[in-house]
Amino acid sequence: MARVMNFGGGPGALPRCVLEQVAAELPDFASTGMSILEHSHRGTAFERVFEETRALIRELLALPDTHEVLLLQGGASMQFAMVPLNFLARGAVGAYVVGGAWGEKAFEEGGRVAAILGASTQVLATSKANADYVEPVYTYDAPLGNTAYVHLTSNETIHGIEYDKPEGVPLPLPSDSNVPVVCDMSSNFLARPQDLSRISLAYAGAQKNIGPSGLVVVVAQKQFIDAAATRAPNALSYAVQAKSGSMYNTPPTLAVEITRRVLLWLREQGGVAGIGAVNHRKARTLYRAIDESKGFYRCPVATAARSEMNAVFRLPTPALEQLFLSDAAREQMVGLAGHRSVGGIRVSMYNAVSELWVSELTRFMDAFAARHG
Amino acid sequence: MARVMNFGGGPGALPRCVLEQVAAELPDFASTGMSILEHSHRGTAFERVFEETRALIRELLALPDTHEVLLLQGGASMQFAMVPLNFLARGAVGAYVVGGAWGEKAFEEGGRVAAILGASTQVLATSKANADYVEPVYTYDAPLGNTAYVHLTSNETIHGIEYDKPEGVPLPLPSDSNVPVVCDMSSNFLARPQDLSRISLAYAGAQKNIGPSGLVVVVAQKQFIDAAATRAPNALSYAVQAKSGSMYNTPPTLAVEITRRVLLWLREQGGVAGIGAVNHRKARTLYRAIDESKGFYRCPVATAARSEMNAVFRLPTPALEQLFLSDAAREQMVGLAGHRSVGGIRVSMYNAVSELWVSELTRFMDAFAARHG
Repeated sequence: MARVMNFGGGPGALPRCVLEQVAAELPDFASTGMSILEHSHRGTAFERVFEETRALIRELLALPDTHEVLLLQGGASMQFAMVPLNFLARGAVGAYVVGGAWGEKAFEEGGRVAAILGASTQVLATSKANADYVEPVYTYDAPLGNTAYVHLTSNETIHGIEYDKPEGVPLPLPSDSNVPVVCDMSSNFLARPQDLSRISLAYAGAQKNIGPSGLVVVVAQKQFIDAAATRAPNALSYAVQAKSGSMYNTPPTLAVEITRRVLLWLREQGGVAGIGAVNHRKARTLYRAIDESKGFYRCPVATAARSEMNAVFRLPTPALEQLFLSDAAREQMVGLAGHRSVGGIRVSMYNAVSELWVSELTRFMDAFAARHG
Repeated sequence: MARVMNFGGGPGALPRCVLEQVAAELPDFASTGMSILEHSHRGTAFERVFEETRALIRELLALPDTHEVLLLQGGASMQFAMVPLNFLARGAVGAYVVGGAWGEKAFEEGGRVAAILGASTQVLATSKANADYVEPVYTYDAPLGNTAYVHLTSNETIHGIEYDKPEGVPLPLPSDSNVPVVCDMSSNFLARPQDLSRISLAYAGAQKNIGPSGLVVVVAQKQFIDAAATRAPNALSYAVQAKSGSMYNTPPTLAVEITRRVLLWLREQGGVAGIGAVNHRKARTLYRAIDESKGFYRCPVATAARSEMNAVFRLPTPALEQLFLSDAAREQMVGLAGHRSVGGIRVSMYNAVSELWVSELTRFMDAFAARHG
């Protein structure tokens, strides 16, 4: 079938050329006579793939040697548990900034883990979110003295809120520069140049911008993870994983190889600067279609916090939203339904979503509004 | 390049036809216009894949409704932590039968987790393993009264010891039938008919017999996981994962699809009965070559405990072992080096390793012994 335009929230679109390269080499990887799936994770062929993948992440982020790159499993949800397991000593506090559904999930899981460890969690700030309007300005409490980390979420895929985009709301960092910052960057990692200098540990599930589900990238200051409370089980210890080169357990080999290919593609796009410019144009095009629709499409997020990754909006009625989705599907545009917890429409514009697709979509949006407005 | 014969310990060989099917459908899954990698894990296309995979495991194991099938991440190593996290209430004991390196790892990780939870672990039995001879008979202590589970390892890939094979040493089950049994079946899961009726929870990393790394299958009595201590973080809670259909976190979608294809292939081989007969013949052929070599090849494992999955043996000198490996590689036979912790030779004969490959290998072994014996 002809390729559809996939605006799904993740797992999301991947570059067509990468899919074709991976398919072509799947039965016989690099003329080794076997699939990358069949290579030992300890063998030369895969070790080269693994190291190149980590090196590409370093290169694309211009990461200094003070930082470690880990490739782990379990996605962001596993990180929600792993962060407190590693850093919450007895009596310590994990502080959370809750800007949407994912920040909320991180906080809840943090609380479960804290209870096991004799530690606790605190909500430091929340955004004011209701059905009609999402306000990015926080009431920000001072973190407690025994705060082990402040946890942020750089992009809220469900609520369509993003921090630190060009001319946008900055990341809500704590004013006390001694408090370590942990950041869930799952849905905007490597989508533009990003300054990680104030972040002690960032993590990102690969399935949004850089690869398949089943792989999570962790970028952390070596000093931070070496000083961890180390009460975590080995498989869930950043320090143990760092020491064993992310191979305490067998890595998801094919997922790593696919990610390597996506990162090579990303380099060809001009790296994060190149893709960032494209992503910025895509978002401008999409939000313009919303703002110029004379209120037919309504985005509930304040302009400065609107996500360049996930644009969420509503139509005048739920019936029109259903019609929008089915008409779009007939024009080969899929993955546009809002998250089941909030409804409405969501347009995810991850790295592999082309400018052409976004133009096609806005043309469709204009025509749909003209027909039903 | 021509396909090599891959006897690697895992990730191991996969059926050629499966690799070709997956490659052919990688850019466009089931004529949906996108890759299985790009489908949402909540969408119809992937949900069908997911449910068929779980149904195939049920069918192949003839599993009753009392059991749950979970598809998780992190491999057996993550299970080493997840089992005690779920089942060790404060003061409880996790008891371990240690028959080799993997049982030892499970015990060590269990101890780390127990310390966090205010619980403890106990070694219930060990096999007598030394460089020259591995004895499968145990000194088996009675489990303590507050034992939450006994943990077994059904096949030790590094030491080449297997339980419960035809006419072999039975699984070292505790005599007290009230004590729940947890079993790491990573390296012989679905390799022959297996009776799980006495096992409360079994787990298996997919990368040996049934799929790629990055996926672990858990088969558990519903009653057992529902009664768990529930102090585990959500992502690591069997009950939470069961309730959310193994989708508390995004599953490794491509790994699941590849596993589905391998399971369909397994069904075509006559299911576990069919593949079990093949695996039995492969092992007989291989061990015969060892035993008829007049001592040139020496397997340190007692006959009744010799693994049908991983045959380990030594040659008269380390130099001859190196020569064996390089000569074999020249004949396109790879993955034969013993685990780096023990050295020697290891022949892994997982489901996708054909009888023809094993015959070729034994022909090579006979010729090598004749040249150097």
